Amino acid sequence: MSEPLAEDTFRERIRARLLAAAREVLSNEGLAALQARRLARDAACSVGTLYNIFGDIDGLILAVNQVTLRALGEALEAAARNASSRNLGERLMALARAYLAYACAHPKSWRAVFAHRLPDGVLLPHFYAADRSRLLALIEAELVAAITEPLHRRVAAHALFSAVHGIVQLSLDEKLVDFDAGQCERQMRFIVEHVAAGLTEDASRATPSDAIWAGD
Amino acid sequence: MSEPLAEDTFRERIRARLLAAAREVLSNEGLAALQARRLARDAACSVGTLYNIFGDIDGLILAVNQVTLRALGEALEAAARNASSRNLGERLMALARAYLAYACAHPKSWRAVFAHRLPDGVLLPHFYAADRSRLLALIEAELVAAITEPLHRRVAAHALFSAVHGIVQLSLDEKLVDFDAGQCERQMRFIVEHVAAGLTEDASRATPSDAIWAGD
Repeated sequence: MSEPLAEDTFRERIRARLLAAAREVLSNEGLAALQARRLARDAACSVGTLYNIFGDIDGLILAVNQVTLRALGEALEAAARNASSRNLGERLMALARAYLAYACAHPKSWRAVFAHRLPDGVLLPHFYAADRSRLLALIEAELVAAITEPLHRRVAAHALFSAVHGIVQLSLDEKLVDFDAGQCERQMRFIVEHVAAGLTEDASRATPSDAIWAGD
Repeated sequence: MSEPLAEDTFRERIRARLLAAAREVLSNEGLAALQARRLARDAACSVGTLYNIFGDIDGLILAVNQVTLRALGEALEAAARNASSRNLGERLMALARAYLAYACAHPKSWRAVFAHRLPDGVLLPHFYAADRSRLLALIEAELVAAITEPLHRRVAAHALFSAVHGIVQLSLDEKLVDFDAGQCERQMRFIVEHVAAGLTEDASRATPSDAIWAGD
């Protein structure tokens, strides 16, 4: 019984070395630098071993992106905890600010989560989708009191995540103007505070605004 | 005097051929396929001529992206004209829907505008920045009555553009769930209608909400 265990441990150790090498290369040089031969060399194993463990380079990239998603999730959870006693607008802004801070601190790793595309027809592994859902669940949790219908709450969480993501991404890419953290925060606040104000109103009217959910 | 004119015409004709070749390759194969040697071959000129006209491959990519920005701008202008008699929320939604429709109809060209990055230290040419500003001006025009302070209006236009862009991009990238145009539109509506409702209120209170502009 000891042989397979030892092999598992060996495999786990190489897996961890490959992941560490990939994270290092990613954070310094970006997604395009994640090449199988180079990572195998950095982790002192063969390319065959890399493929054996991760299936292909996309499998390794997904594993690295999963580490990023989890770290991002932890940063957002900490922000949500710190803001838990505040009102909806302030709680959503705390999440948005934590998102911007994470993206600024780990730009290449953060970018890789969104830039990496699986080959056509390859499905996203279940574990990855689950980590992604956990991020959205953090926003949904803040909206429980304001939006009682679960499907509407999910749409709202997606919309807020994507809106803040768009503001952070175009700001960091300097696609509209030079990056300015204050401008970026003002843009996030413009969206978040209006949505929070609207939701608080919706809740006091007991039903969400018809204009928003018409056509569901 | 006729010689230089003839040369200009010749240059213009090759420029147009290179642009047409680049647009064709971009819309079929995406940004990564825009390689100098191939485009020169497609346009029946030398690589030296391509560099002579556009400076480098980035210059040619910027010129192609400028064509995309202008076409996108025309699509948004048409949507704004068609919705001009409607209320703020409906006008902003018409712009958002036109943006989604453009991205769906020309996914690779649209993506290239945001994916292309100039080498570090290279400034964006003035003509390109001007075309980009024209897109934002379309949103600002809709906000004139609701936000009288020009700097606030600019922040709001940036925020709305980036929010809708983020929703469209993550939806088309299937980064959160499989693409579903109805879901994408519901997410845009969630943001846009709340902002429009909030702005109409702000305007009736005569001063924008302090929570949103605090810290300017």
